[in-house]
Amino acid sequence: MNNQSSHVDVVVVGAGYAGLTAARDLKKAGVSVVVLEADDRVGGRSMPGSIAGYVVDLGGQWVGSNQTHLLNLAKEFGVKMYPQYVGGEHILDVTGREARYKEGEDLPLEPADLAEFNRLVGEIEAVAGKVDVAAPWTVEGADGFDAQTFENWLQNSTTSEPARAVHRLIAQTIFCSQPGQLSPLTAIFYAAADEGIEHMIGTVGGAQETLFVGGAWQMASKMAEELGDAVIVNAPVRSIAQTDGGVTVTSDAGVWTAALAVVATAPPMAGRISYTPPMPPRRDALTQRMPMGSIIKLHVAYQTPFWRDKGLSGAILSDRTVTGMWMDHTIPGVETGGMVGFFAGGHAQAWAERSPEERRARAIEDLVTYLGPEANNPIEYVEQSWLAAPWQRGAYMAIPSPGALTAFGPALREPVGRIHWAGTETADVNVGYIDGAIQSGERVAGEIVKQLKP
Amino acid sequence: MNNQSSHVDVVVVGAGYAGLTAARDLKKAGVSVVVLEADDRVGGRSMPGSIAGYVVDLGGQWVGSNQTHLLNLAKEFGVKMYPQYVGGEHILDVTGREARYKEGEDLPLEPADLAEFNRLVGEIEAVAGKVDVAAPWTVEGADGFDAQTFENWLQNSTTSEPARAVHRLIAQTIFCSQPGQLSPLTAIFYAAADEGIEHMIGTVGGAQETLFVGGAWQMASKMAEELGDAVIVNAPVRSIAQTDGGVTVTSDAGVWTAALAVVATAPPMAGRISYTPPMPPRRDALTQRMPMGSIIKLHVAYQTPFWRDKGLSGAILSDRTVTGMWMDHTIPGVETGGMVGFFAGGHAQAWAERSPEERRARAIEDLVTYLGPEANNPIEYVEQSWLAAPWQRGAYMAIPSPGALTAFGPALREPVGRIHWAGTETADVNVGYIDGAIQSGERVAGEIVKQLKP
Repeated sequence: MNNQSSHVDVVVVGAGYAGLTAARDLKKAGVSVVVLEADDRVGGRSMPGSIAGYVVDLGGQWVGSNQTHLLNLAKEFGVKMYPQYVGGEHILDVTGREARYKEGEDLPLEPADLAEFNRLVGEIEAVAGKVDVAAPWTVEGADGFDAQTFENWLQNSTTSEPARAVHRLIAQTIFCSQPGQLSPLTAIFYAAADEGIEHMIGTVGGAQETLFVGGAWQMASKMAEELGDAVIVNAPVRSIAQTDGGVTVTSDAGVWTAALAVVATAPPMAGRISYTPPMPPRRDALTQRMPMGSIIKLHVAYQTPFWRDKGLSGAILSDRTVTGMWMDHTIPGVETGGMVGFFAGGHAQAWAERSPEERRARAIEDLVTYLGPEANNPIEYVEQSWLAAPWQRGAYMAIPSPGALTAFGPALREPVGRIHWAGTETADVNVGYIDGAIQSGERVAGEIVKQLKP
Repeated sequence: MNNQSSHVDVVVVGAGYAGLTAARDLKKAGVSVVVLEADDRVGGRSMPGSIAGYVVDLGGQWVGSNQTHLLNLAKEFGVKMYPQYVGGEHILDVTGREARYKEGEDLPLEPADLAEFNRLVGEIEAVAGKVDVAAPWTVEGADGFDAQTFENWLQNSTTSEPARAVHRLIAQTIFCSQPGQLSPLTAIFYAAADEGIEHMIGTVGGAQETLFVGGAWQMASKMAEELGDAVIVNAPVRSIAQTDGGVTVTSDAGVWTAALAVVATAPPMAGRISYTPPMPPRRDALTQRMPMGSIIKLHVAYQTPFWRDKGLSGAILSDRTVTGMWMDHTIPGVETGGMVGFFAGGHAQAWAERSPEERRARAIEDLVTYLGPEANNPIEYVEQSWLAAPWQRGAYMAIPSPGALTAFGPALREPVGRIHWAGTETADVNVGYIDGAIQSGERVAGEIVKQLKP
């Protein structure tokens, strides 16, 4: 343990995109900062990995054209991008019926089921259109939408089992939850912040449109480099004490005093810090009711992207298999083929306690189902179980439990004395994405500069 | 900070009824213990208060005839009991219709509504009858019951608004939650552990039958006295490290090494301790999904129990007022009259950030509604907001969010290496009550004695 003890203007807790952005903006404004990161690396829920000699993302990886905060950062740091592969046919396999379709085409459901699926999307987006992203609990009907589960809403809204099935897969792969674990209000909130359900699940024109050469974590790494000594890893913050004069932040790497603190972790992780004086009821209660989503991310490398030769894009959405979503993740200009997939929501919850070997076997079995026997011969398998990650304990984001947003929502980003909150869950746009994390960091830096340098 | 560092056989975290019982049983079996309590007092969610010169309970206070663990403890320590006053008429005021009834009579609903209310109780209890309390997530239909909210279940199960209204009041006053914040499986689980809904809401023959002269917290206090120096208050445990050789428990009052640890706090509070190695995914995920119930307990003292002269028992159950439940709490042989009431569930959530003065004004206004203008002149008002209590952050118990029990239930009491879990949430009987806490302490002590002294 390093026993540093120093004074800065602002202590930032967490070196994910939100914390790093806040620190960087503060520093630019002449505010002195330290960023204390619990983990042994920066990036938070963005994290590099390596497979078959290539760098891949074990955390967030895609960017959509509306995610301007992330795109600007990539541009600034000169990180190149490439489009998600969408050649050939995608596979949709729900309620026992496998079908194929091309990018830009409608989902290959029976017309009546497709109409029902779209009607449900329309219902969510109609409410989302009226939502103030900074206060989704104020939208007309919020109490009702938050007092039920998304599963209930599906059951009461349609009799089309295929339409329900696709929405359940959305709950699993976008919200990393079972449809019975979140409320429709949460789906409405995220749809409002993220340009709608269609955009969230879309590739071309959607949130999975583009990838970064070398990985999405790079911009976090570059921000940390720029911040230099101001970023300290292996420094879990254990307590934050506030007085009239300032804050005292105690970490495993030492104690810092400051005028203000920014906690830039997901709410449930923020709830594990000890606060003096204790958090007000609303804030504490919220952190008890926003569990992290459940996701295990998988990368599988093959000699070649053999599925392309079979006319497949690699995009798979399935409720037949355990791994419910796959995408081609072949790096351009490289011979090796890559697939990226997920144990999502309930599947991640059920498989989190099994061994990587068991998960690997299951993932390969699922790939064989759709890509054929060639899938049996991967070069390498790499996974990241976010449920096991000690300082994140889930991903992509924290998901409010039913009833939490309407009861305690304002505590999401309302400062508590000298403590400000950042993180993708507190964003105005692209909530749940890296882009939202960056925006939240910019927002909080703006609040603080205004406060410290009026 | 006291810098003690010692070795014991077992470190118990939390000096509520569960932890104190475990420590006491272990000590009796010749196992050396220390009990580390974060708060400045023992008792946990049982806590003494004082009003008009008399001691009252700010936490759990009643005992039912089936709560033999608590009754035996009272007998052992010579604590006297007295029956809850049930003379005169109770008031039920739901969906705009106020009516009175006597103890033992049916709820004064219209016959069709009463039949619906009872049918819903019967549906819950029919499933509860098939539940293994140690594993409620295994009951037939568990997945479905856990994928909806209790509110959804009410809306889909009956069209009787009065029947729904009484069940909503049960969710608020028994589970300290909004009906949209818990699943029917949780109601089924508690009904199974606690002899059914009728028993849970009942007075004579039910869980509110009897009170302790001097308060229910006394037996905790007496157990702590007996344990003497082995109980250390103001000792929040910050981390527990496990190795092959034992555990190291670090608290603000020093560091203890031991063979085993018992964490006897509610699951969400247990989740705020830092563990090395980190908790397995299932356990960590569970602690993220069991928020503490929302309750603010109120005592109001009057010169006399004037409502008795008006033919009222003082028992009020209402959805017209903000304080939804009141009971007579007049101490026998005392001239002063006492009422005990609650801001419960959503009302506690909405009123937690207001001042005690505002809550007092509202509580008195509500009492005037039912008891008449004499209620305007209390001698004293005392309250306990459990949402604000820094080491409990809610009461009576932690309530699983929809989908949590089926996904992560086994982690509730499955030991993790050298760490065992106690607390009323882990009980075999009377889950959520003091009695369950005691039983969980006995169970865990039994497990450990078997392990240490085979």
